Amino acid sequence: MKATIDHIGIAVGDLNASLAFFKDALGLELDAPEDVPAQRVRAHFLQAGEAAIELVEPTADDSPIAKFIARRGAGIHHLALRVDDIVAALAELKTKGVRLIDETPRPGAHNSLVAFIHPASAHGVLVELKQVK
Amino acid sequence: MKATIDHIGIAVGDLNASLAFFKDALGLELDAPEDVPAQRVRAHFLQAGEAAIELVEPTADDSPIAKFIARRGAGIHHLALRVDDIVAALAELKTKGVRLIDETPRPGAHNSLVAFIHPASAHGVLVELKQVK
Repeated sequence: MKATIDHIGIAVGDLNASLAFFKDALGLELDAPEDVPAQRVRAHFLQAGEAAIELVEPTADDSPIAKFIARRGAGIHHLALRVDDIVAALAELKTKGVRLIDETPRPGAHNSLVAFIHPASAHGVLVELKQVK
Repeated sequence: MKATIDHIGIAVGDLNASLAFFKDALGLELDAPEDVPAQRVRAHFLQAGEAAIELVEPTADDSPIAKFIARRGAGIHHLALRVDDIVAALAELKTKGVRLIDETPRPGAHNSLVAFIHPASAHGVLVELKQVK
């Protein structure tokens, strides 16, 4: 498969504090936020070249992001790779023995399809695959 | 300043295990490794579009990467942003009250100049600035 870095997801505890750095200090351009109800998060993308930074803000206490922050603190949460055909990519990874969190893709931000690979198969990294529809 | 994502640094505990995923399963192309003696690491870059994944392997027990792995385990270690003028970028961030680990740049991989921003000023993220000479 051909995979390119789409974005880095950052778990956000305090949105204003995160924007003070990534938007105000670094000067990155902020897109309009987008709710992803399936994950109970609000996504704030800042484009930084071909790839982007996604500030992921939990919208409920039981959001996976809220749990991550409670356990490890705010910081880098995942690495998202863009693929052309996510169904084919997941099938190929499964054949290669890679452990998947999502065997089938689900809706993500920006009208995309996404699926997560288990960190146990990706050297401790939570990897998201993303296909833009 | 204009900042673009240059790479994601991953702290590597077992190089073969990390290559089994990022090189063999994902099919990303691996560059020749490069030692960075100042950090006591060996850097293995895999290009993934405009941005890259850097597998950072400690070469000594007192390497900052070895200490990171002992504390938090293998996984994402830093986010590197490419800037055109690292000295000007550091001066601008300092004026804005951002806490810097390196006030002046030092040599990095690929004949670059690098400097780190303190995670306390970057919402828990260890951010590297990089200027290619």
